[in-house]
Amino acid sequence: MQDKNISQVVISRLPRYFRYLGDLKDEGFERISSGELSKRMNVTASQIRQDFNHFGGFGQQGYGYNVNYLYEEIGKILGLDKRHNLIIVGAGNLGQALANYMNFEKRGFFVKGIFDCNSEIIGKKVRGMTIMDTKDLAPFIKENNIDIAVLTLPKQGAVEIAKTLVSCNISGIWNFAHCDLEVPDSINVENVHLSDSLMKLSFKIHENEN
Amino acid sequence: MQDKNISQVVISRLPRYFRYLGDLKDEGFERISSGELSKRMNVTASQIRQDFNHFGGFGQQGYGYNVNYLYEEIGKILGLDKRHNLIIVGAGNLGQALANYMNFEKRGFFVKGIFDCNSEIIGKKVRGMTIMDTKDLAPFIKENNIDIAVLTLPKQGAVEIAKTLVSCNISGIWNFAHCDLEVPDSINVENVHLSDSLMKLSFKIHENEN
Repeated sequence: MQDKNISQVVISRLPRYFRYLGDLKDEGFERISSGELSKRMNVTASQIRQDFNHFGGFGQQGYGYNVNYLYEEIGKILGLDKRHNLIIVGAGNLGQALANYMNFEKRGFFVKGIFDCNSEIIGKKVRGMTIMDTKDLAPFIKENNIDIAVLTLPKQGAVEIAKTLVSCNISGIWNFAHCDLEVPDSINVENVHLSDSLMKLSFKIHENEN
Repeated sequence: MQDKNISQVVISRLPRYFRYLGDLKDEGFERISSGELSKRMNVTASQIRQDFNHFGGFGQQGYGYNVNYLYEEIGKILGLDKRHNLIIVGAGNLGQALANYMNFEKRGFFVKGIFDCNSEIIGKKVRGMTIMDTKDLAPFIKENNIDIAVLTLPKQGAVEIAKTLVSCNISGIWNFAHCDLEVPDSINVENVHLSDSLMKLSFKIHENEN
C-alpha cells in the first residue's frame, strides 16, 4: 500500500505523528479523529489525511483512527518493529549521554559497544560497557551484527571512522560530528548538527528583534 | 539589503554555509567561486547564488566570493556577532554534555548557569558551575541577562519550566525535551528531537532494504 515516492517532508513528519500517538495511547485514547489530532499537533486535518494517504490511509474518515493500530503501523513504517544494534564511536560527554539514554531501547535500539581512540579512557566503563579501542571497530561490527554507528567524535576523527564504517558496509550512520560525511548512497546518514541548530535559534532571535 | 520574507528552507541552509566557509578559512582559502563552493557542499551553484541573493548577493559572479567577508556577513545574519547568555535546565547526561561543549563559546554562546530539580544533584559542580535549584530560575534569568534557555529534561518538567521561561520573557528556547512546547510567538523555539532523528534513520534503512 505504501507509495514508493514519498517526499522527505512527509517522512520527516512521521516520527512526530508516532510521538503524539504514543502520548495519546498513554493517556488512554482509543480513537481520534483527524480533526482532534490536527488540533493537538497544530497542523491541518487535511495535511494529516494527505500524509496518511501515502501509506494507504489507516482509517475511516468521520469514524476516526484507531490510536493503537495507527501507532503500530507508523512504528512499522519507521522500522521500529525490528531490532537495531548500535555502537557509539566517541566516548566523550555526548557519547556517554547517548549511551545512558535508556529510552532508545524501548524503540528497539540497543547500544552494544562504545569506542574511543583516546588511550586514557579506553578500558573505562560506561553503563557497564568497557570503552574499546576504535582500531577494533571493524571485527566488532561484523561479529555483533551492528547496523547503526553513532558518531560522537570531532570531525577529523569522524572522516576516518566513516571510511572504516563504509568498508564494513554499515547500514546507517547517526552523525553528530560537525561535518558532512562522504559515503556511498547505499549507506544511510542522519545528521544532528547541534551547532547548526543553535545558530538557527540565534537567527530567529535576531530576526524578531529587528 | 536583506529580503524580509526569506523562507525557512533558505535560513536552515545558512549555518551549513557558515560551517563550510569556516573550514575554507581554516584551510587558508581567500576566494572561492560559487562553482567550487557548490562542488564542496554538494548543492548547485545556482542554488548558492539564489540563496545569497536574499541577502544582497555578497560578491561578484566570475570573480568569486571573498571567503572571510562572506563568513563574517553570514555570521552577522545568524546573530553570531552578538553575545548570548545561556542557562541549561536539566543537569543529566545531555545537559552536562552541552555544558562541557566548549565550541559554543567560540560562537558567542556562554553558559552562565545550570539547573536541576533533583535535590541529589543540586549543589554538585559541572565545569566549575554549581548546579542550582530550578525554583531559583526566574530571578537568575533577570539578574544575568539570560536570553537562551536550553531544556535537557524530561517532557513533564519541560512543560512546567517553559511556563516560567515565558513569564521571564526569555528570547529563545533550545528544546531537547521529547515534546513540542506551547509558547507565544514572541518566544523563539528550536527543537532537537533526538528520538525523531533516530527514527528517520531507521526509516531510511528499512526503505532501502525493501
